[in-house]
Amino acid sequence: MDYISRHVGPNQDEQQVLLDALGYESIGALIAAAVPGGILADKPLDLPVALSEYEAQDRLRELAGKNQVLRAFYGQGFNSTLTPPVIRRGVVEDAGWYTAYTPYQAEISQGRLEALLNFQTMVQDLTGLDIANASLLDEASAAAEAVGLMARVVKKGRRVLLDARLHPQVINVAAERARAIDLEVEVVDLTEGVVGEDLVGAVFAYPGTEGDIADPRPVIEAIHERGGLVAVDADILALTLLESPGEFGADIAIGTTQRLGVPLFYGGPHAAYMAVRQKLQRQMPGRLVGVSKDAEGYPAYRLALQTREQHIRRERATSNICTAQALLAVTASMYAVYHGPDGLKEIAQNIHQRAADFAAALEKAGARVKHAEFFDTVAVEVEAARGVVDKLAQAGYLVRAVDETTVGVSFGEDTTDADVQALLQGFGAQPAEGEAHLPEALKRTTEYLTHETFNRIHSETQMMRYIRELGDKDLALDRTMIPLGSCTMKLNPTAGLEAITWPGFANVHPYTPDEYTAGWRELIDEIRSWLVEITGYAEVSVQPNSGANGELAGLLAIRRYHVANGDTERDICLIPASAHGTNAASATLANLRVVVVKTADDGSIDLADLDEKLAKHEGHVAAIMLTYPSTHGVYETDVRVVCDKVHAAGGQVYIDGANMNALTGIARPGDFGGDVSHLNLHKTFTIPHGGGGPGVGPIGVAEHLIPFLPSNPDVPLEQAAAEVDGAAGVPVASTLYGSAGVLPISWAYIAMSGADGLRSATAHAVLNANYIARELGDSFPVLYTGNDGLVGHECILDLRELTDKSGVTAADVAKRLIDYGFHAPTLAFPVAGTLMVEPTESEDLAELDRFIEAMRAIRAEIQEIIDGDIEYEKSVVHNAPYTAESVIRSEWPYEFSREKAAYPVASLVHRKYFPPVRRIDEAFGDRNLQCACPPPEAFDIES
Amino acid sequence: MDYISRHVGPNQDEQQVLLDALGYESIGALIAAAVPGGILADKPLDLPVALSEYEAQDRLRELAGKNQVLRAFYGQGFNSTLTPPVIRRGVVEDAGWYTAYTPYQAEISQGRLEALLNFQTMVQDLTGLDIANASLLDEASAAAEAVGLMARVVKKGRRVLLDARLHPQVINVAAERARAIDLEVEVVDLTEGVVGEDLVGAVFAYPGTEGDIADPRPVIEAIHERGGLVAVDADILALTLLESPGEFGADIAIGTTQRLGVPLFYGGPHAAYMAVRQKLQRQMPGRLVGVSKDAEGYPAYRLALQTREQHIRRERATSNICTAQALLAVTASMYAVYHGPDGLKEIAQNIHQRAADFAAALEKAGARVKHAEFFDTVAVEVEAARGVVDKLAQAGYLVRAVDETTVGVSFGEDTTDADVQALLQGFGAQPAEGEAHLPEALKRTTEYLTHETFNRIHSETQMMRYIRELGDKDLALDRTMIPLGSCTMKLNPTAGLEAITWPGFANVHPYTPDEYTAGWRELIDEIRSWLVEITGYAEVSVQPNSGANGELAGLLAIRRYHVANGDTERDICLIPASAHGTNAASATLANLRVVVVKTADDGSIDLADLDEKLAKHEGHVAAIMLTYPSTHGVYETDVRVVCDKVHAAGGQVYIDGANMNALTGIARPGDFGGDVSHLNLHKTFTIPHGGGGPGVGPIGVAEHLIPFLPSNPDVPLEQAAAEVDGAAGVPVASTLYGSAGVLPISWAYIAMSGADGLRSATAHAVLNANYIARELGDSFPVLYTGNDGLVGHECILDLRELTDKSGVTAADVAKRLIDYGFHAPTLAFPVAGTLMVEPTESEDLAELDRFIEAMRAIRAEIQEIIDGDIEYEKSVVHNAPYTAESVIRSEWPYEFSREKAAYPVASLVHRKYFPPVRRIDEAFGDRNLQCACPPPEAFDIES
Repeated sequence: MDYISRHVGPNQDEQQVLLDALGYESIGALIAAAVPGGILADKPLDLPVALSEYEAQDRLRELAGKNQVLRAFYGQGFNSTLTPPVIRRGVVEDAGWYTAYTPYQAEISQGRLEALLNFQTMVQDLTGLDIANASLLDEASAAAEAVGLMARVVKKGRRVLLDARLHPQVINVAAERARAIDLEVEVVDLTEGVVGEDLVGAVFAYPGTEGDIADPRPVIEAIHERGGLVAVDADILALTLLESPGEFGADIAIGTTQRLGVPLFYGGPHAAYMAVRQKLQRQMPGRLVGVSKDAEGYPAYRLALQTREQHIRRERATSNICTAQALLAVTASMYAVYHGPDGLKEIAQNIHQRAADFAAALEKAGARVKHAEFFDTVAVEVEAARGVVDKLAQAGYLVRAVDETTVGVSFGEDTTDADVQALLQGFGAQPAEGEAHLPEALKRTTEYLTHETFNRIHSETQMMRYIRELGDKDLALDRTMIPLGSCTMKLNPTAGLEAITWPGFANVHPYTPDEYTAGWRELIDEIRSWLVEITGYAEVSVQPNSGANGELAGLLAIRRYHVANGDTERDICLIPASAHGTNAASATLANLRVVVVKTADDGSIDLADLDEKLAKHEGHVAAIMLTYPSTHGVYETDVRVVCDKVHAAGGQVYIDGANMNALTGIARPGDFGGDVSHLNLHKTFTIPHGGGGPGVGPIGVAEHLIPFLPSNPDVPLEQAAAEVDGAAGVPVASTLYGSAGVLPISWAYIAMSGADGLRSATAHAVLNANYIARELGDSFPVLYTGNDGLVGHECILDLRELTDKSGVTAADVAKRLIDYGFHAPTLAFPVAGTLMVEPTESEDLAELDRFIEAMRAIRAEIQEIIDGDIEYEKSVVHNAPYTAESVIRSEWPYEFSREKAAYPVASLVHRKYFPPVRRIDEAFGDRNLQCACPPPEAFDIES
Repeated sequence: MDYISRHVGPNQDEQQVLLDALGYESIGALIAAAVPGGILADKPLDLPVALSEYEAQDRLRELAGKNQVLRAFYGQGFNSTLTPPVIRRGVVEDAGWYTAYTPYQAEISQGRLEALLNFQTMVQDLTGLDIANASLLDEASAAAEAVGLMARVVKKGRRVLLDARLHPQVINVAAERARAIDLEVEVVDLTEGVVGEDLVGAVFAYPGTEGDIADPRPVIEAIHERGGLVAVDADILALTLLESPGEFGADIAIGTTQRLGVPLFYGGPHAAYMAVRQKLQRQMPGRLVGVSKDAEGYPAYRLALQTREQHIRRERATSNICTAQALLAVTASMYAVYHGPDGLKEIAQNIHQRAADFAAALEKAGARVKHAEFFDTVAVEVEAARGVVDKLAQAGYLVRAVDETTVGVSFGEDTTDADVQALLQGFGAQPAEGEAHLPEALKRTTEYLTHETFNRIHSETQMMRYIRELGDKDLALDRTMIPLGSCTMKLNPTAGLEAITWPGFANVHPYTPDEYTAGWRELIDEIRSWLVEITGYAEVSVQPNSGANGELAGLLAIRRYHVANGDTERDICLIPASAHGTNAASATLANLRVVVVKTADDGSIDLADLDEKLAKHEGHVAAIMLTYPSTHGVYETDVRVVCDKVHAAGGQVYIDGANMNALTGIARPGDFGGDVSHLNLHKTFTIPHGGGGPGVGPIGVAEHLIPFLPSNPDVPLEQAAAEVDGAAGVPVASTLYGSAGVLPISWAYIAMSGADGLRSATAHAVLNANYIARELGDSFPVLYTGNDGLVGHECILDLRELTDKSGVTAADVAKRLIDYGFHAPTLAFPVAGTLMVEPTESEDLAELDRFIEAMRAIRAEIQEIIDGDIEYEKSVVHNAPYTAESVIRSEWPYEFSREKAAYPVASLVHRKYFPPVRRIDEAFGDRNLQCACPPPEAFDIES
């Protein structure tokens, strides 16, 4: 059977049932009716013939084989580490973990929320700061976010000092993100002191990119005296041995947790971290897990302080981060749980000892080691760094030419004696033993990871069971449909997923010279060329490592294009009222002013209002950000008109690719008016959501924007600065190819689908959505429809009238769906009081019908309230969901039966999921903010 | 942290708690007290320095890289196939599936029982016979079992006809197994007719080893006329196109299901199948899953007709099969579910078309194709077969030299155009298109796989969820301790498990010439040499693919040794009363007469009775089969005495390695008196149980038995016959190295443990068992103890007095443990009315305490009955286990509370497993035998 038949849920027979229900003869006829003629592509995509799963894997194996995996001693933010097999298999390769969605529905996400809370606790402990978030995209963007945070807090300053000792990619990304919001950036060696006033703050490297450890306290004092804030970019593992940023007074700590068991992945995905002092917590970007309580008073986890986030605050959000790196944060946290404080410390000490021995050996051989104090990296002065580097590469070792006469060698967890010997050979030295090179004044004396979770799970059996126990608490795609509008929770093909942990892909350092990475680059070139064909753009960059980061990259490209054309006044971004909150937040980060365009009664863009805004802001419109089909789930007929109007006004058209699952193979944004789009490879192109990341957000651009695509972050500062001043792009991630590590998944999906398969997937997505809209329309009105009464690939069910009549809210329905074994649809977006349902093409008829049955049953439960049979507060819907314990307890406080609570439809007897907690009190958690692991006693049911 | 610290459950602190509870200063002191001085090894094992998990994986990768994987067109019972990634990841690589135990506790095994029932249904449908078992060890032993079955049924005949067209390994194994039970074997081309009388039956090849398809009907008629039975060895995939054995009158069908998605694995493990007519069902060997009902009348699966099996019938059992190939049968059944009838047929047709095209191309080029009718294999006459084979091997292709002038080319599911082209090049031919070569008269016209399970799950999403749904029903080692005495359910290290699906290991055909399999052979040589050191024997063979098969191999070696010495009269095997049933059954298969030796009051062998039996059977004693420590869980002090007595009587000592987890690194059976032992690599050496297989049962032998170790089954018939007549061993499995595919797991375990680690593991196993014995002794008397009141690595809890007082049986306790989230200990073995508990070294203190808490709580529940607070029939224990539905139902028929049923201890609130069915009625299922998938209506809760 070809792959696409495995990917698409309904088989031929089922497809016929669906079409009959809708009254269309063929799926082609349905698409022709649903999609406006003006945008339909007139020819099939020009993609290679579809491969079978096995052919695709053979090809992937060939590509992996073309990479020559050098043993990585390069450092610069990416270090060799050992992923415990039990964690690789149990988390990274387990569908229960990787197919989960972002934990907005906290009741069915307690497992991964606990794992993320472990991550936060670990970061808080190691950094010595009060509160940590649940990950950021990468180290470089974390530095940029830290600067952004400073700027939001320290409103009067404009100067930002970036330590010249930071890794080049961190400086390059942070500097440009800071400049984009009109900060003045100075790259200075902070160990040499701080000069001048008007400071927002500084980012200090701990250790520096050459491995040197400097005392941050003088800098911190100097900055604080001037009213600024200090962020420390710290090596998380080094913090087991070194005094923490919190202890010496830093306000913010950031860094990467890659070296805690996450493969190099040719650059990503990896979880970055950020921790802050309590006073800054409401300004912190990214997701934050907190402890609250459920309806019975038990501790329960959920995302805290969501009011900071873009989906609520839009252009005033703390950041545009939506997808983060949940799966990688979970991996790093499991690594910390498994090793515990003693284990982590031992790993760090071993690494340091390797470095110390290496330095001693070099010095014995007469070489000059540049820094007296270091953790894992030894910087050596040589006559010609390139020569040493090339020689060692020949021997299979990757080290870094820091500059023309400095070689950096960074040790990792996996270093062996043989490695050391081979490396020393490159310098003509012999092994020796060295003394520790850690600064006495900065040695860590405080404890960390004291919570019992980090001190209980030491055996592989315990780890295996802990991973399973947490995973079992959650409802992911491997157990149920997740009909989340706008999120495209479709099948993640195992054939592609298997490849990402193959050593030939996973163990490649991102800064490996091109000559050793032919396989990676060939794969990336292919996927880029395919995405160009799919989108109709002229070029694609895969660098952005989330959809939101893609938006930022696209808007920065637009902004820089205008500036390069002398249109420096164009700083307005038009955004329809129905847009994702991310759009507005991204525009803000790109220093664009947001102007909202109204929605007409039919859900489309209000053309009159658009005309008005264009006229009012003549000469100032930089861009419009559209989503197509719109977030209202409808193919708007006027999209070309909108694009034309904006173009006529001198603006660029940004088409958000969030809904590409309704377009792929059917229509191309590059053809119907877009200048830029980002794609969400984790939506349309089958990278799993990972419980809230990783994501990949490539951008496609028209010809004129190619020069402004993201540039390589790993270039010397002078070169980066020169490029930035010219008509060039700027980097948005730590590495040229961003989250390269997961690209094989999308590569495989496209390679296995081919042009016909992609088109078929899209058509079935539309078919499934229309079937649900048709079958549920009587129970819950579908808010918007387009041509022929059809929706696109999703539909909005309007509950507002029912809420008025019964009190039952959309949130009640979302929680009640848990009892039926479902993850809720998207709640209150894009319209409050509604649920947006996107089944995707991967759900079969039986699962669609199971969902329809559940929704109809809930509708009947609502009717009981309307009919006066039961009060809203006492109703089965309002009190949902029900834990097993709650329905088993002898005391039964409800008017409805236990069966009605737990088994409202018969099929549940054979397939029942019980949530581990009852409905969670969101407000309580924010009022009593606690974002680290609670003590075990908190869970004692007898206390 | 070193591997062994991950493998062993208790850490240093916990170890101290355990020792304190027992009153020993150190673990060394405990071992010195528990183990008789006479057997304690006087020096550490001479094994390589322990590797870390990562070093072990590096080395495994190196070994896999040393295999040159030829594209396999060899056939001979092993064919290229494509494992769907979703099945590989979801089943083969999922701890929930592979760490499960054999499904004796049916209530917590409904998932894998359903998967095995699918397997049986598939086999029944495709073979057209009435009833199929849940797998056999391999094709060759399946043929041997078929012959054994015939001999049990057709008591008057002595002659067995083996089709010369069978694969050589099938003939070699089946012939020797038949000869071992005194049958007369004739290898004849059955297509040439049947001659003579006195027939037990015949085994017919369908197709033959050269690929030729012959009509079996004349043979079947001729045999039936003579009162014999006919088994057909059929290619399971060919049966989608060819008339089935059942339709044309065969009594038995056997074969392998490897080509249904199971990797070549260098020979195994693969699931063989057997199906029979209804009248033979009670004589069928192996496991059989049947449908029964639970206490509420719902359909429920469980093992059927267990009275046939060795653990009940001992020497009159249908076979010695204990471990089968459950995990591989599940894999094959999932493959059938995923492809469905149409998909399987399409795969078969494609393969046939490849073969037909290939034949046409050869004929066009002037070559002679030997057979006009074939399925997947084309036999070509050439001048020198070896030359063609070598030339193609150089090109990366493995084909078969059937004889000096015949080359066999067998096509598989994965054949590509490029493959065909390359193969044809080897013959100097060009691609062509051919007509079908299936015999018209044997074309299949009947349906198969009509059950809805095979016609419902077509998408990857559905498959992923079905696998998860079934897996979730079961309780495996990834969720709880499985304290099964004698079964050693310890940690299965992921570091080793990961390697088995690497293509460099998994995709190697077993008959690949040695020059291409250096990695495999190096690995096998290493593990053999390590096992030699661990056991103290002179040599080890890894060929036996289960413990029972190892027993048979060992006993055959003993028997042949005696015969070679002229001791043809030595045909008695002494077996202690406490032995595993398998021992007696194996002895019977080796044509040894079983004489039972009594047990003394203290559980040890009754020396007086031994003397008596030795005297009585003077000159006839072939061997004694001991288990050490005995199945009573105690290190008997007299083991050397027993060995000496038997040796003095001219007998050999077979020491069953079932309890090697109490010896490894501490004592060596080869040192204290054994001549032969089998090891269970799936017990002591961490191969997972797979829900009932695979197993690996290597045997170690003393110097004098080396010539009688299992020989290579893949040798020409003449050579095999010559060897058999000489002082040589005989083969017991289809390939020289048996289930080679899973050896990397044990290899990794030993490599990562080293001598100290193995010893530590054993010592902790003893520590954990003694802790449980000590803590539970007050609640349930420990039946046997040895030195110092200590047990070995397991202990027997005696329930008989409690049963007398309360009515509560050991089985009640076993079922009640399910409600506490545990798999029961071993029930009623070796002593009826008891539970045998083996915690293994991998369980930590918390899990041990959780088990102790559960057992004490059950003891209190029993006390309530004794105290007259509740009647036995109404008690919470007797009615256990409880499904979620049963405790949620509004109507609550019991005197005890719902909480008492479902949450008897507080910790269950956070970690509760509900079985999917209530207690299963065993007898009902045997009275109403149904061994295929029941119709969906059977599960309709409303009917």
